[in-house]
Amino acid sequence: MLLSRKGKIMKIEPRTLKGFRDYAPSEQLARQEMFKKIQTVFERFGFLPLSTPVLEYKEILMGKYGDDEKLVYSFKDNGDRDVAMRYDLTVPLARYVAQNQGQLTYPFKRYQIAPVWRAENTQKGRLREFYQCDIDVVGSNSNIADAEVMACICIALQTLGIDNYELRFNDRRIFNFLARLPEETNYLTDVIRAIDKIEKIGQDGVIKVLEDRGVPSVMLDRVLKFVKVIGLTNEVISATDLDSDSMGAVSYISETMKRVVAFGVPEKNVQFNQTIARGLDYYTGTVFEIVLKDNSEFGSIAGGGRYDGLLDTFSDKSLPAVGGSIGIDRLFEALESLGKVPTAPGVEVVALNLGTTTFPEVLRVTAELRGAGVNVDVYYDEAKMEKQFKYAESKGAKWAVIIGEEEQKSGTVKLKNLQTREQMEVQESELLRIIKS
Amino acid sequence: MLLSRKGKIMKIEPRTLKGFRDYAPSEQLARQEMFKKIQTVFERFGFLPLSTPVLEYKEILMGKYGDDEKLVYSFKDNGDRDVAMRYDLTVPLARYVAQNQGQLTYPFKRYQIAPVWRAENTQKGRLREFYQCDIDVVGSNSNIADAEVMACICIALQTLGIDNYELRFNDRRIFNFLARLPEETNYLTDVIRAIDKIEKIGQDGVIKVLEDRGVPSVMLDRVLKFVKVIGLTNEVISATDLDSDSMGAVSYISETMKRVVAFGVPEKNVQFNQTIARGLDYYTGTVFEIVLKDNSEFGSIAGGGRYDGLLDTFSDKSLPAVGGSIGIDRLFEALESLGKVPTAPGVEVVALNLGTTTFPEVLRVTAELRGAGVNVDVYYDEAKMEKQFKYAESKGAKWAVIIGEEEQKSGTVKLKNLQTREQMEVQESELLRIIKS
Repeated sequence: MLLSRKGKIMKIEPRTLKGFRDYAPSEQLARQEMFKKIQTVFERFGFLPLSTPVLEYKEILMGKYGDDEKLVYSFKDNGDRDVAMRYDLTVPLARYVAQNQGQLTYPFKRYQIAPVWRAENTQKGRLREFYQCDIDVVGSNSNIADAEVMACICIALQTLGIDNYELRFNDRRIFNFLARLPEETNYLTDVIRAIDKIEKIGQDGVIKVLEDRGVPSVMLDRVLKFVKVIGLTNEVISATDLDSDSMGAVSYISETMKRVVAFGVPEKNVQFNQTIARGLDYYTGTVFEIVLKDNSEFGSIAGGGRYDGLLDTFSDKSLPAVGGSIGIDRLFEALESLGKVPTAPGVEVVALNLGTTTFPEVLRVTAELRGAGVNVDVYYDEAKMEKQFKYAESKGAKWAVIIGEEEQKSGTVKLKNLQTREQMEVQESELLRIIKS
Repeated sequence: MLLSRKGKIMKIEPRTLKGFRDYAPSEQLARQEMFKKIQTVFERFGFLPLSTPVLEYKEILMGKYGDDEKLVYSFKDNGDRDVAMRYDLTVPLARYVAQNQGQLTYPFKRYQIAPVWRAENTQKGRLREFYQCDIDVVGSNSNIADAEVMACICIALQTLGIDNYELRFNDRRIFNFLARLPEETNYLTDVIRAIDKIEKIGQDGVIKVLEDRGVPSVMLDRVLKFVKVIGLTNEVISATDLDSDSMGAVSYISETMKRVVAFGVPEKNVQFNQTIARGLDYYTGTVFEIVLKDNSEFGSIAGGGRYDGLLDTFSDKSLPAVGGSIGIDRLFEALESLGKVPTAPGVEVVALNLGTTTFPEVLRVTAELRGAGVNVDVYYDEAKMEKQFKYAESKGAKWAVIIGEEEQKSGTVKLKNLQTREQMEVQESELLRIIKS
């Protein structure tokens, strides 16, 4: 506490930092329910939870995020160590696997649902603290792993009631096949980045960018031929005049697609889309994103890909990896706009307080209902009924339990449905059945 | 990546900071299950979740933790703001309530299970990142609130299978009553701190400390008379020659005790203990701690109390509050030593891979089992059976599902119980029933 000039105690202004926010009980209850449902699906697919610290040595995080590295929260701790707050869940996973390489069984499949921190520009409405929700498979080259990661995220969305989504996926290596780009040049990166922007800059834009970069025109032709078949089915693609290398890539992708469907994703929701490239430099094969067809304004609400080189930073042994991430804040907004926010019971019953004579009875019934698995809140003070009902409603309770002296004598309980305003007198032995029905 | 003098790429050593640790899947699965069970009890008692940010303005946290303030992780962010990582969950709650004072309905009951950070001396084996698990009631003076907080934590422990615990509670105001200590002196704090150490320094030690502090001997006599009845029942206390003020305090405490029992805690687990004082300066009334009788080496695994003044720091309006916290790491260790770590299903079934001919069948059965709520992992590669079984065992799975060409032809599935090594051939339609039984 500080003293002002006049000697009064100065209060500290209660406020949160820009880009940081509280989640009030009603919203947090729904978010937790969303996390729980997603987590359940992750475990169905054989992913297990891993927890890593919020703080890491700064050097662990550096060199992984390109230009965005400046967004990492870092500082010197009390022991003068350079430390940083985690920026994503992928780099800590890579660190964990490298550190425990000999103890793990591969493929190592883990999920992690946890907050990350980025010093983003808050003017764009971006939060600086937000949750990520990741699954990854480390140690498998099989495209079954790629398919399972994509399918698992799709099924998680379906479990939340989202059916009208589109999984768009691609394989970055396809650009190698189709353009036979020499690996030692940077053309591949240029091509990927240009194609990633095709929706914004159009086909002519892509040509211009690549010509400026000096990509030979023979390669450009091959790239463009391929881009023209975006979103088409395999049958249509097969009918185009692609060369045999490109067809090889197509058939590989077609197999991955079949696996995704085999894992339970409806075929109509899966699209091979050659323009998907994803921003991050570390992807090496499959890349994917998921958009909501009814809410394209949210952009991609999930995405990921294969990143076979990332673990090399920490270890001499190379381990392939593929993973995906759900943008949980966008997803929650989407669920809100679809009216599909998951509901949790919260407070189901509020037991009112009608004074000291009957309060022991109220406590007894409260303890019984709780013991039977009902969420019960009990009003502490002998306040006016109106105030107590208002309290019960503010908690979102469906029922109010009322025990006055009359009820006490007759061994009954007054039960008020706060939604319909109906009130009934029931035998205590009937109470649980009615509330649970 | 750095280049060494010889021009080789230098790997970054994968390691965690001192006082920080990863939780591997098997342990994290159990921890999550423990959190879930505790959370369920909190919601039974009408507490709802609140989420607050990890970073707060530094000034919010300062002036709350006494000498321990130096343990707060603080730094300047990119915008040159003084920020700090949360040190506990109580101060952020006080900040939240003050910030949203007009919008909340009182009593405001919330729980929060989240990590906090303290730059502790790691030589004592203390972690610098650890979870807290708090419930608090803001806005009620009633001792029903105190009783409910204590009872809720006790029932949470019982739900985890811990029955042999002792809830020791006290009321700090009792020292006022019994010693009639003038409020303007520091005697009360001295008395509380000295009595808090009675188990270590003994009755003579307490007398010596207080005499050195200049506490008048008439007060000392009254304090010691009270301390002598530690742990005795109310009946015994009534029989001692306490004066009427002390008896008033005893009767208030006796009422709180009855409420705790009414909320479902067995009477044998509750003890009024006049030596409980708790370290934190901000407690103003009830203080309590819970010890495990079979594992007293863990010290108190939960504690809390009433802190009616804390919110005054942020607001002109005074709001009383009472809360409690479970020391989740100690609790987990205790559960380990009692053999009561909660188990979660994790991976239940691993579907093996016997080659491309039958793999589509394997994927179909996998998708079906998952759809029915079973956690199934599928082996990606056509590896040797021995390797696949080893994988399944390392995941803690109970069952391996095997579909070879023979099974495919006959529409059956080979099911191996990995615990008993028993193997059976079952109809596909029977599979789910057997696994779930």
